[in-house]
Amino acid sequence: MSFVEKIINTQRSKNSLLCIGLDTDLKKIPTFLKSYDDPIFEFNKRIIEQTKDIVCAYKINIAFYEALGSTGWQTLEKTLKIIPKEIITIADAKRGDIGNTSELYAKAFFETFSFDSITVNPYLGYDSVYPFINYNNKGVFILALTSNKGSSDFQYLKIDGKPLYQKVVETVIEWNQNLNCGVVIGATHPEELKVLREAAPSLPFLIPGIGAQGGDLESTIKYGCDKNKELALINISRAIIYASSDEDFDIKSREITIGYNNKINNIRNKL
Amino acid sequence: MSFVEKIINTQRSKNSLLCIGLDTDLKKIPTFLKSYDDPIFEFNKRIIEQTKDIVCAYKINIAFYEALGSTGWQTLEKTLKIIPKEIITIADAKRGDIGNTSELYAKAFFETFSFDSITVNPYLGYDSVYPFINYNNKGVFILALTSNKGSSDFQYLKIDGKPLYQKVVETVIEWNQNLNCGVVIGATHPEELKVLREAAPSLPFLIPGIGAQGGDLESTIKYGCDKNKELALINISRAIIYASSDEDFDIKSREITIGYNNKINNIRNKL
Repeated sequence: MSFVEKIINTQRSKNSLLCIGLDTDLKKIPTFLKSYDDPIFEFNKRIIEQTKDIVCAYKINIAFYEALGSTGWQTLEKTLKIIPKEIITIADAKRGDIGNTSELYAKAFFETFSFDSITVNPYLGYDSVYPFINYNNKGVFILALTSNKGSSDFQYLKIDGKPLYQKVVETVIEWNQNLNCGVVIGATHPEELKVLREAAPSLPFLIPGIGAQGGDLESTIKYGCDKNKELALINISRAIIYASSDEDFDIKSREITIGYNNKINNIRNKL
Repeated sequence: MSFVEKIINTQRSKNSLLCIGLDTDLKKIPTFLKSYDDPIFEFNKRIIEQTKDIVCAYKINIAFYEALGSTGWQTLEKTLKIIPKEIITIADAKRGDIGNTSELYAKAFFETFSFDSITVNPYLGYDSVYPFINYNNKGVFILALTSNKGSSDFQYLKIDGKPLYQKVVETVIEWNQNLNCGVVIGATHPEELKVLREAAPSLPFLIPGIGAQGGDLESTIKYGCDKNKELALINISRAIIYASSDEDFDIKSREITIGYNNKINNIRNKL
């Protein structure tokens, strides 16, 4: 089963395009969790238990764990172990280096930590991305057009009349021989999302920027999905995981997740 | 003291432009070290002890440690503790993410691990780099033109007649308000190095690609140094640290380092 097939299967079986971002920050989690040995793991565990039947993916923002030093990596290991196998795990790591070094990053995330997929920066070109793509049962989401303001600094620069981000998407289509590549496109750019879906009809799109970053859900679903109304992975982090700071925060996160799922599926049904 | 002053001071006091890359790989270190509790730390310790008086910097390739999971980060912590304060430490991490996430990476490398500087990918633009630059006593080396083959995929694309890598260097000059930015330019591109040094006369250049990657030392020194024959940090990794697999590998590494220093300083003297 190719990575793209795994995405489709999971999105269908869960009836969900939602990806929850586990950007877990000790400063933002409910206070009562701080009496546990590993409060971040405890937080993740409760979010996962309450949402694993209604999402297609969890995206783990590696920076939040790396910032804690070696204990953060232990928390990451434990978190990965409790995510059910059928759900896509995404290491949001934005790695990319010369070949021999990318090989080690690929080994770290795909073997040491058993992630299903990773986000990768395209700037160093094919030989920096190949070591990830070469794991043909794993997935690689290449940054194309990011959700942040700084995306205008380089990603919009014009090359022969086309923006760099479009050149990246066209290049990823060429790289996608193992059917395991996708691209990252921020929900904060709906018009560009439309153009890119036309250019790449069968590529998985990982779409952050809904929720705290202000991306519009309706246009994101309309323009980001493929012709079967799937293959868009809609990531929401802060707006779901920090929905409440009470003891029942996980129940509240589930409610918010169900709310987003319903909204997304209503939009899909009308397409 | 700004970061650029720290580089100049160290290059003068050590009379060395050399940076040793600690790309330490368990598969490549001498067999006798494997009986130690932490063979990678033991290897690094011996290399550092034998070379700390004759280099200006150590560049630690983070992937090699990350690949080992949480124990790798412990090895990294121990290694940083034994590097003398006056020597520049570079986290070769090639990070870069949206603002709130880059803040965490900056915290990880500059606070949790106390690195002096880091390598950063420019693709996500200013707000992804700012959290690093904002530590004004720390250094930020932004990728411009990398040493690998894949550098041709995007970095050479022309924007208004100029290659993207040049646009990146010009942008870094604008970002360098704290005098703590530098750029990464591979030694495998000597002609481009010349053009970029003319465009950026006072920016530190971190230059990998000498040694195993085949960059030419003479043109690298000639084109990479500033008008005072400094501000180029010449990184060599594999050709120094894996010079021998015998028990006296560290002595051999010292000899090779002295040899490179002499060659570099001879070239500088003739400029």
